[in-house]
Amino acid sequence: MIAFTDIERAYKTLKPVVHKTPLLSSRTFNHLTGNEVYFKAENFQRIGAFKFRGAYNKIASLTEEERKRGIIAHSSGNHAQGVALAAKLFGVKATIVMPSDSVKSKVEATRGYGAQVVFCSNSTDDRERTTDELIRKHGYVLIHPYNDEKLIAGQGTVALEIFQDMKDFDYLFIPIGGGGLISGCALAAKNLFPSVKVVGVETEGANDCYQSFRASKIIKLQSVNTIADGMRTLSVGTLNFEIIQKYVDDVLTIKDDDIFPMMKFFLERMKIIVEPTGAVAPAAMMKNILGIQGKKVCAIISGGNIDPDLLKKILLP
Amino acid sequence: MIAFTDIERAYKTLKPVVHKTPLLSSRTFNHLTGNEVYFKAENFQRIGAFKFRGAYNKIASLTEEERKRGIIAHSSGNHAQGVALAAKLFGVKATIVMPSDSVKSKVEATRGYGAQVVFCSNSTDDRERTTDELIRKHGYVLIHPYNDEKLIAGQGTVALEIFQDMKDFDYLFIPIGGGGLISGCALAAKNLFPSVKVVGVETEGANDCYQSFRASKIIKLQSVNTIADGMRTLSVGTLNFEIIQKYVDDVLTIKDDDIFPMMKFFLERMKIIVEPTGAVAPAAMMKNILGIQGKKVCAIISGGNIDPDLLKKILLP
Repeated sequence: MIAFTDIERAYKTLKPVVHKTPLLSSRTFNHLTGNEVYFKAENFQRIGAFKFRGAYNKIASLTEEERKRGIIAHSSGNHAQGVALAAKLFGVKATIVMPSDSVKSKVEATRGYGAQVVFCSNSTDDRERTTDELIRKHGYVLIHPYNDEKLIAGQGTVALEIFQDMKDFDYLFIPIGGGGLISGCALAAKNLFPSVKVVGVETEGANDCYQSFRASKIIKLQSVNTIADGMRTLSVGTLNFEIIQKYVDDVLTIKDDDIFPMMKFFLERMKIIVEPTGAVAPAAMMKNILGIQGKKVCAIISGGNIDPDLLKKILLP
Repeated sequence: MIAFTDIERAYKTLKPVVHKTPLLSSRTFNHLTGNEVYFKAENFQRIGAFKFRGAYNKIASLTEEERKRGIIAHSSGNHAQGVALAAKLFGVKATIVMPSDSVKSKVEATRGYGAQVVFCSNSTDDRERTTDELIRKHGYVLIHPYNDEKLIAGQGTVALEIFQDMKDFDYLFIPIGGGGLISGCALAAKNLFPSVKVVGVETEGANDCYQSFRASKIIKLQSVNTIADGMRTLSVGTLNFEIIQKYVDDVLTIKDDDIFPMMKFFLERMKIIVEPTGAVAPAAMMKNILGIQGKKVCAIISGGNIDPDLLKKILLP
């Protein structure tokens, strides 16, 4: 398991290149929920999501020889862009395997950072097969989207920044996809402020970590069904789960139907664009699933990359 | 003319109730324009625009007797909401005269803050007539949208906050409607940092201040034609113009067509919602009308209240 010092080291690496994203708040939201809630706005991060942090920290850790070989990642979303931008900054060749039905704007953004895009079918198996083949053929170094120590350390810097700005949080709400963000942030938070409760949030249609947490072993779903595209992983990683078991206090789920009202609130009242996955942790506070009152809470907005068509649907359903 | 100390005093009044809005930036925008540009995000202000500042400072200055009489304002937009919220916080009765074709969401927001809404036709004359009648009948105190010293001092606190965060700006770009924001900010900026160049920005279809600035006298337009609804005033106020003549270095205009690309950039790249008027000063930097390079610039985003239908149009034209 990584140590807190790994996250501190990652922060030294990342500080010159990441945006220090703000903690936002809304009097109306606080009034509605009866708590003092802050949103860590990683939708303002470079590439529009926290994923840049882990990708950059990982690539920074590669040897000269590995960098020369080039890197590879598979992702339909923010990991693709995070890896592509980080690779560009290091002058490393990047190949990204993306499902052929990926949103056009995300493919373009990934190419815009100079990465080569290779398409595959939409199944997880085919993604991995395509990626493995390219690795065998070209010797590329794989940048895993969550099950990687350097990556976890990078994502953990989100929590470091949160506690730089404000110290006395009672709760930290974090969305769970593959578990990269929550494992890094839980480790950082509990080392800095052991009294903070760390709560993971998933959607019901992708509740693998909710089940795994309760079963005390990793449960892999057969399929997922959720609008939160960043949560469509079938299970969390082994490295992630080890940390989650040790440092996370609870895992909650919300319904997909809770996501749009939260996104609409962000848009209309707070004037910010949040993607469905990014609204999951805040939505758990909007619904106040824990039934808490008068507490100081930080909910992480993981990203803001949303397809214009989907955004239109939210605006005028 | 108000003094810098009036703005400092206004800030003491406002500090406990306003949001200190952040300075945002975008590497992509800086790369595109060749300058280091920061956006003062007053779209994150309470009621979604800077207007709350002036309204609150004005109502704070009223006597007990005046507050008992109740206040009145005429506005189709952000001034209405700013006055309504400020009045609510002071427990003062507010009446807002709005054109009958006002956007429904703005009418609802104004009512949501507890104000009474009285409709009139869309002409400036009818607005003023309706307002005057109500004042005669009920003795309400008028909260003018820009031509008022207390209001100007309140709006000037935007510049105070900017220079709290960062000191060495070469340029300050400020949108001009009736002149409340630019007069307060120009006065504050030049008193704090005399070397900063203060530049006002209007749209071509509402270029009254551009003309007035060059003619050295207030020119009143017969009509205006612009999508920037916050700029649809026929002339700036007398108190505003006196300050503009003394402290503003130049007034520029942009085309309405320059506004949507800037809003789209804010939305897609920076994940924030900016209303058309709020995008005017930034658009002058995006077009780099002054042709400057390597300068440190702050452009004020005046607000973020936009009709969902219009937002949809921008998203997918």
